[in-house]
Amino acid sequence: MLNQSDPLNAVFRALAEPTRRAIVLQLSRGRASVSDLAAPLDLSLAAVVQHVQALEESGLVRTQKLGRVRSCELNSEALGLAEQWLSQRRLQWEAHFDRLGAVLAEDAPGSSSE
Amino acid sequence: MLNQSDPLNAVFRALAEPTRRAIVLQLSRGRASVSDLAAPLDLSLAAVVQHVQALEESGLVRTQKLGRVRSCELNSEALGLAEQWLSQRRLQWEAHFDRLGAVLAEDAPGSSSE
Repeated sequence: MLNQSDPLNAVFRALAEPTRRAIVLQLSRGRASVSDLAAPLDLSLAAVVQHVQALEESGLVRTQKLGRVRSCELNSEALGLAEQWLSQRRLQWEAHFDRLGAVLAEDAPGSSSE
Repeated sequence: MLNQSDPLNAVFRALAEPTRRAIVLQLSRGRASVSDLAAPLDLSLAAVVQHVQALEESGLVRTQKLGRVRSCELNSEALGLAEQWLSQRRLQWEAHFDRLGAVLAEDAPGSSSE
């Protein structure tokens, strides 16, 4: 049932850090270099490189070396994997509530099923 | 820009652990006691209690002591918070691609805008 190598482990772990979410937010507006990503963040370039590496290892970001510049791009598939897992849990939870509501309505006095 | 106390930090951190995701999955099918949650997991009750506590601190789970039983319930709001953050990033990313596509189509030879 449990999978220690499930890609969601790394995706959710990467998203738990606010700087990394800020980088994902920046990249959701389009491709950027590591220097572009560092500009609005109050961090050293080395720290930003480390966060980008963690995002790359999680699969959320793809990078490509173009000459001396490392260009970063969001991988919407990894993002979609996490989103889908959450939406499935929410839908399952809502379906449970709908069933519960139907059962309660059936049991209520004056119900049409009597 | 960065918020170290953003509730998403704790929500994503809680979801990064496969046992905790298994617990969230179980709870998405309805309310359960800690013993119910432990039954399908190959873990001690104490370990499951710790995971439930981490989920409770993240806001993903609410618990209530009913006599000697601790009853656990999913908090779909916290789940929705994470889902919304991810879907906003995906939609932003798709909008960026749509704009990029429109620009490329306009620049293409034989484009109707010439």
